[in-house]
Amino acid sequence: MRAVDIIQRKRDGLELAPAEIEFFIAGYTQGEIPDYQASALAMAVFFRGMTPDETLALTNAMLTSGAVLDLSDLPAPKVDKHSTGGVGDKTSMIVGPLAAVCGVVVPMISGRGLGHTGGTLDKLESIPGFHVQLSLVDFKRFLERAGLAFIGQTPQIAPADRKLYALRDVTATVESLPLITASIMSKKLAEGIDGLVLDVKAGDGAFMRRAEDAHALASAMLTIGKGLGKKVVALVTDMEQPLGRSVGNALEIAECIETLKGRGPKDLESLSVELAARMVWVAGITEKIEGARARVREALASGKGLRKLQEVIDLQGGDPRVCDDLQRLPRSRATTTITAPSDGRIVRIGCRSIGHAAMLLGAGRETVAGYVNPAVGLTLHKKVGELVIAHEPLVTVHSDDERRLSQVIELVSQSITIGQEAPPLVPLVREVLS
Amino acid sequence: MRAVDIIQRKRDGLELAPAEIEFFIAGYTQGEIPDYQASALAMAVFFRGMTPDETLALTNAMLTSGAVLDLSDLPAPKVDKHSTGGVGDKTSMIVGPLAAVCGVVVPMISGRGLGHTGGTLDKLESIPGFHVQLSLVDFKRFLERAGLAFIGQTPQIAPADRKLYALRDVTATVESLPLITASIMSKKLAEGIDGLVLDVKAGDGAFMRRAEDAHALASAMLTIGKGLGKKVVALVTDMEQPLGRSVGNALEIAECIETLKGRGPKDLESLSVELAARMVWVAGITEKIEGARARVREALASGKGLRKLQEVIDLQGGDPRVCDDLQRLPRSRATTTITAPSDGRIVRIGCRSIGHAAMLLGAGRETVAGYVNPAVGLTLHKKVGELVIAHEPLVTVHSDDERRLSQVIELVSQSITIGQEAPPLVPLVREVLS
Repeated sequence: MRAVDIIQRKRDGLELAPAEIEFFIAGYTQGEIPDYQASALAMAVFFRGMTPDETLALTNAMLTSGAVLDLSDLPAPKVDKHSTGGVGDKTSMIVGPLAAVCGVVVPMISGRGLGHTGGTLDKLESIPGFHVQLSLVDFKRFLERAGLAFIGQTPQIAPADRKLYALRDVTATVESLPLITASIMSKKLAEGIDGLVLDVKAGDGAFMRRAEDAHALASAMLTIGKGLGKKVVALVTDMEQPLGRSVGNALEIAECIETLKGRGPKDLESLSVELAARMVWVAGITEKIEGARARVREALASGKGLRKLQEVIDLQGGDPRVCDDLQRLPRSRATTTITAPSDGRIVRIGCRSIGHAAMLLGAGRETVAGYVNPAVGLTLHKKVGELVIAHEPLVTVHSDDERRLSQVIELVSQSITIGQEAPPLVPLVREVLS
Repeated sequence: MRAVDIIQRKRDGLELAPAEIEFFIAGYTQGEIPDYQASALAMAVFFRGMTPDETLALTNAMLTSGAVLDLSDLPAPKVDKHSTGGVGDKTSMIVGPLAAVCGVVVPMISGRGLGHTGGTLDKLESIPGFHVQLSLVDFKRFLERAGLAFIGQTPQIAPADRKLYALRDVTATVESLPLITASIMSKKLAEGIDGLVLDVKAGDGAFMRRAEDAHALASAMLTIGKGLGKKVVALVTDMEQPLGRSVGNALEIAECIETLKGRGPKDLESLSVELAARMVWVAGITEKIEGARARVREALASGKGLRKLQEVIDLQGGDPRVCDDLQRLPRSRATTTITAPSDGRIVRIGCRSIGHAAMLLGAGRETVAGYVNPAVGLTLHKKVGELVIAHEPLVTVHSDDERRLSQVIELVSQSITIGQEAPPLVPLVREVLS
């Protein structure tokens, strides 16, 4: 078997055999197949796509390129949630505790923010002392104790994906459905989980802007997860405007805590309850989704969800007092309020622009190596459909550095459209696939 | 400008600007743009193609990546011939001397054989003592003296092409019309020529099997040559059966000498005269092609072509006595004759199989690093359309190593079809583009 023949077969539109994909990925991971052959194959896949069988083989090859967590000695069902990322998308810190309270073991391997989207790890690290670089031994120990732990991707997990993703990023081969599918699923399935709830974002602030692309990705991931013997549910959810009212690491943690106290924004609470309920249901804890929703609402209303988050913060070295005193979270030096230029209704909030503005403030990274400022970000006082009166606050900008402030203010102002009629209501959950 | 953006633009079907192509090729040649980005771009070009303007910019960028020969102090017109390669394709050693006799300066930069096709350099090196690794100073000195010299590609000429071709070979990106065009034309135009005659082979033994693909390549090369200010003629010629009757290095040199003595196979003589005449015409030595043909036929009939070849052999260190005594060429240890199984007419000679058989004997290379045996090869006693009687010799196999002999005999036997009716005559020159 030769790498060049495999590239040529894919180039010519033929279906690769599982053994060919396995050979290529194993060789690439071990450094026997060079980057230049992997990038040529990735570009050929970009143009030719992959069949479900090929995508399954690719996912499996990447999954088995490294360690697969063995959580089989934890008796409870293990279920994770994965979101494809967006702006203000902070459900992990709400959903994880709520599902854990309901008896699910939630091994969350999360990522960092890049570009206009934030990352769970960056958000958690805004809690003083919180650390996400756990050993796999500690990760498992915390899971056993609290039913929930957060960790970053480790070199042991799916090394083929780490290597291939870095290569795709610099060779214009990121936007390929089978490659995205295999990348996400290989990492998730290495967590040793029984089931998975996928939150595929669609809209201006999402990786997939069009609902049909999000549907296709959700469907592909569902097929792969089932093909590898997992119970999977995928939701396509709206990312036309930021989720909740805060964008920025510590600001989002504060909003999660408020939500777990029952005082969060409605959209964030509602999506979090739905995702957590799907996890409970996938875990087989309740037979029907309605029962799962009732359990999750109880976990929220009782304050047990908040106490679970506090427990996990404590276990992972963070200051648990943040849950009772938000002032302990980092705060920016300056705040600037952008007000409404006129009366009306919010017709649109340019989601990608809001994410980009937060990145410019320092809340996100322009490049993988960039530094993230935990304190800065944006608070949205109005969301789409809401009434606004001239000079009323629209957005508060939390900044530490004035150099880009005028640029941010302009970007945010331009991203918000005020009109006379409320736009048609978009449901937060556009579709459920299972 | 970033390499990844250039790859993405090509991937998405946009036309690259000359400055983008120049940036990419210069960066790649200097090692600033890595192989993995170049292979991704090559694969994107494979799928998206290139406009004539893009191909021109690519050719120019590769051409100017290295030295361009300055032959401006030689007063005579400089014209080269390039063939896309085939089986028994040995016209360079006939065409070069004939054109030089007619007053053309012919700076021939040639290649080596690979796979089922032979290479001019390997053939010339079968002449005892002949060497092709000339310095550019010697190359120019010999051109000045004899009007003809043969040399291999040097590291100074089109280094971008050397690097990119090696990469394409292992990333399944060879078969791209604009990349092939730019590769050939950048090397040829670095020779400091005024004009070029292209012999694009079409048929079973050619790189382009289908006549329409050969036409497309001929047309693309013509456009580029003209775009860079050269006078160019392109011929699409038949490669459904080997050219002439011999395949193998020393055997082909012997056939060239015989042809220059007026005793060569008709197809070889006729194509050689036509190509040389086109060179004379492109050089502007005669106004009409008929006049050029008459000049070339005179150079052949007078024996001046043979004396020119002899002069060049002498200058380049070879034994000039081979022209008068073919026994001085290397000869194989054994010969085996394959005879006709029945009466009839030769309907087909599988050209690629014959080339492959010669390679198996050692006349060609399986890999770039392979060794070539000058003595071995095949002599075809019958060509397509000729009558044959049972037990008459069809092919003589010249071998030095018996291990693969039975495989070769089987391959050759299977490649020749004897039938009752002569197949329709295919013209040797299918098309002339100018």
